[in-house]
Amino acid sequence: MTPTLIQGVHKGKVSSAVNSIAASEGFSPEYVQECIGSGSIVIMQRDGHYTGIGKGLRTKINVNLGTSSSKVCLDDEIKKAQIAEKFGADTISDLSMGGDIDRIRKTIFSSTSLPITTVPVYQTVSEIGLKKMTADDILETVRSHAEEGMSSLVIHTVTSAMLAQIRKRKRILGVVSKGGSITSAFMAINECENPFIEHFDTILHICQDHDIVLSLGNTARSGCINDQRDMLQRMEEKNNVYLAEKAHAAGVQVIIEGAGGHIRLDRIAPMIRRYKKMADFPLFVAGPLPTDIGVGYDHIAGCAGASTASAAGADYLCYITPAEHLGLPTVDAVKEGLIAFRIAAHIGDTVKSGVMAEDRSVAMLRSVLDREGQVRCAIDPERASSLSDGEPECTMCGDFCAIKIIQELQ
Amino acid sequence: MTPTLIQGVHKGKVSSAVNSIAASEGFSPEYVQECIGSGSIVIMQRDGHYTGIGKGLRTKINVNLGTSSSKVCLDDEIKKAQIAEKFGADTISDLSMGGDIDRIRKTIFSSTSLPITTVPVYQTVSEIGLKKMTADDILETVRSHAEEGMSSLVIHTVTSAMLAQIRKRKRILGVVSKGGSITSAFMAINECENPFIEHFDTILHICQDHDIVLSLGNTARSGCINDQRDMLQRMEEKNNVYLAEKAHAAGVQVIIEGAGGHIRLDRIAPMIRRYKKMADFPLFVAGPLPTDIGVGYDHIAGCAGASTASAAGADYLCYITPAEHLGLPTVDAVKEGLIAFRIAAHIGDTVKSGVMAEDRSVAMLRSVLDREGQVRCAIDPERASSLSDGEPECTMCGDFCAIKIIQELQ
Repeated sequence: MTPTLIQGVHKGKVSSAVNSIAASEGFSPEYVQECIGSGSIVIMQRDGHYTGIGKGLRTKINVNLGTSSSKVCLDDEIKKAQIAEKFGADTISDLSMGGDIDRIRKTIFSSTSLPITTVPVYQTVSEIGLKKMTADDILETVRSHAEEGMSSLVIHTVTSAMLAQIRKRKRILGVVSKGGSITSAFMAINECENPFIEHFDTILHICQDHDIVLSLGNTARSGCINDQRDMLQRMEEKNNVYLAEKAHAAGVQVIIEGAGGHIRLDRIAPMIRRYKKMADFPLFVAGPLPTDIGVGYDHIAGCAGASTASAAGADYLCYITPAEHLGLPTVDAVKEGLIAFRIAAHIGDTVKSGVMAEDRSVAMLRSVLDREGQVRCAIDPERASSLSDGEPECTMCGDFCAIKIIQELQ
Repeated sequence: MTPTLIQGVHKGKVSSAVNSIAASEGFSPEYVQECIGSGSIVIMQRDGHYTGIGKGLRTKINVNLGTSSSKVCLDDEIKKAQIAEKFGADTISDLSMGGDIDRIRKTIFSSTSLPITTVPVYQTVSEIGLKKMTADDILETVRSHAEEGMSSLVIHTVTSAMLAQIRKRKRILGVVSKGGSITSAFMAINECENPFIEHFDTILHICQDHDIVLSLGNTARSGCINDQRDMLQRMEEKNNVYLAEKAHAAGVQVIIEGAGGHIRLDRIAPMIRRYKKMADFPLFVAGPLPTDIGVGYDHIAGCAGASTASAAGADYLCYITPAEHLGLPTVDAVKEGLIAFRIAAHIGDTVKSGVMAEDRSVAMLRSVLDREGQVRCAIDPERASSLSDGEPECTMCGDFCAIKIIQELQ
């Protein structure tokens, strides 16, 4: 059997994945190698396309897309995948739950070169139903997604003890994780343990066979800022760190999803640091949203939360679109959300890694009043150009440009 | 002569302005009275319309609008004023520098009930020119704006020592404050002291006569995140605190503009706290922008910076539009910028004042799956509705809504 990336590292093998990430992120292969060995960096792999996530690396952004049971438009999902790649997403999660899910996933997969993540239980529950599906059905989906070439799979790790905690209903918004709620309901209906935990060794074998990054979901994230960190979150943190260590020991690359959801701004950094103190696995954060009132503009509120999270040490951000809490995002909403989170990731990196060279380049262009240059290096040059108002020079200050005035003075 | 608000407070007079702010912000008149007396709260007044800014009050947002020498469209400026009021701006600054400035200002003034701020030197330099204008011309404009009913006036307080510092040119982007650069150039051309400082007593008399809030401009703000806090900023902070104390002692309400511009995310809160430690006058912050690379999306980057600034104690935020660094904003850009900053102000207030009741209301609507209610209470219900995709129920999760699943489980 081919060794996994981690197993290779333990044998001292420097793979092309390691060399590629080292080169693109500006580190030595030894550094990347060491971090993979300790679990603080993972590499999502797909046909020679590598995305490194973790310690010291640039903060990465994931774009969620896919159909829902009430809205299926494959053309839109293809466009979303393409726009995600065009505007700098690092990974895509296909969360499809409606239509011909196999076909949709395969089409999305072939529409992009980015690594794809799925949440296998979504397909199982969509096709078989919550009451009918069995643990075997779930494992079968996990296996088929792995075989098909997904780079990463998400499982939700709610335990029986956590389920009892959820049932106590102390929060305003109990559980807002879809995968977490489906897994919880499955456990309740069948009066059984979580199949992902019960069959964790099988899952690990599947991940080993295909060198897949295992992502441990964030069932316990809060759904509003008034729902503060609680017992459920503490239980999940501990459990996910335990499972991550087990996965890593088995040579499976692993990411922990945590510190996501709705969190008041001042509580985000402490939450991230607490996680990072417990374990140094790459931390994947959904949002977070520092307010609940941003309906229609949650990508903007999310940028504020995600900037803070990334600055405090989050390695990987799951974007939020303007359509969050309202409906399945349109292609435009996907683009808007992604750009807001690219800005957030960069703001985080200026703090976390002191990376300010791109900012310096833009500032240098401004110092010589090169507006065209600014437009050219904008995340979305077309938009920057349209905001320039068709005028050759900046119309903001016209003749009274501070930069011009001061340069004449100097 | 009618006493100013501060002079009234010192005499124990509780004015209708104080009662109005106390009622709308949920404080006792005594509290507001005390803060006005100490200078930590100011009230911008206009025909019975009051906007309180400062200690303990909700974070306020200013919208800049107005023509430039290269773009004049009065219709657009009227629409900008109207949209600013409609979407919850607290104040408007008319920064017009092109066209018939008197007429434009008067038209904008009559298009809104919000308090208006101006930067008088903009009009003087636009109409007379940098080389021809005199200190008397500048003072004359200050006087005429005051008489016309402006609620607040901005002056730039660069000293000769600061000018010498500017000429040393150690920054990538020297000075990015338009008013500051005009004032500096005037001083250089005429080899004179800053007319606003030299005639500070005259300015104070004008402000006393019309009970106008004096705003001390932020000439020294940095234009890129690689330009860190420097001698110029330290000089301005000290000078502005000195002038603010002098103004306050003369019964003139005063705001300090500071900690604005481009500042790396982790440096924003310390900057705000340093100011607040020096003096407790209301702090007016432009942005700040925690990255320079957001061209075309500076309102989003600005939301991240302004959330952090407001959470750390900034009292009053000057919005940034998507057109920042590119051109004069369109009506739509004004709206987008304002909404991003309303979100930022609110995020700040959840931390600064622990105000989370609006968030709780939205969360309660979510807990009962009341999407219409969410749309209704959105900042922009029209946009929220259009993002809802014309579907009666949320299309995001369809049948697999976590909230529904968990509620059934409970």
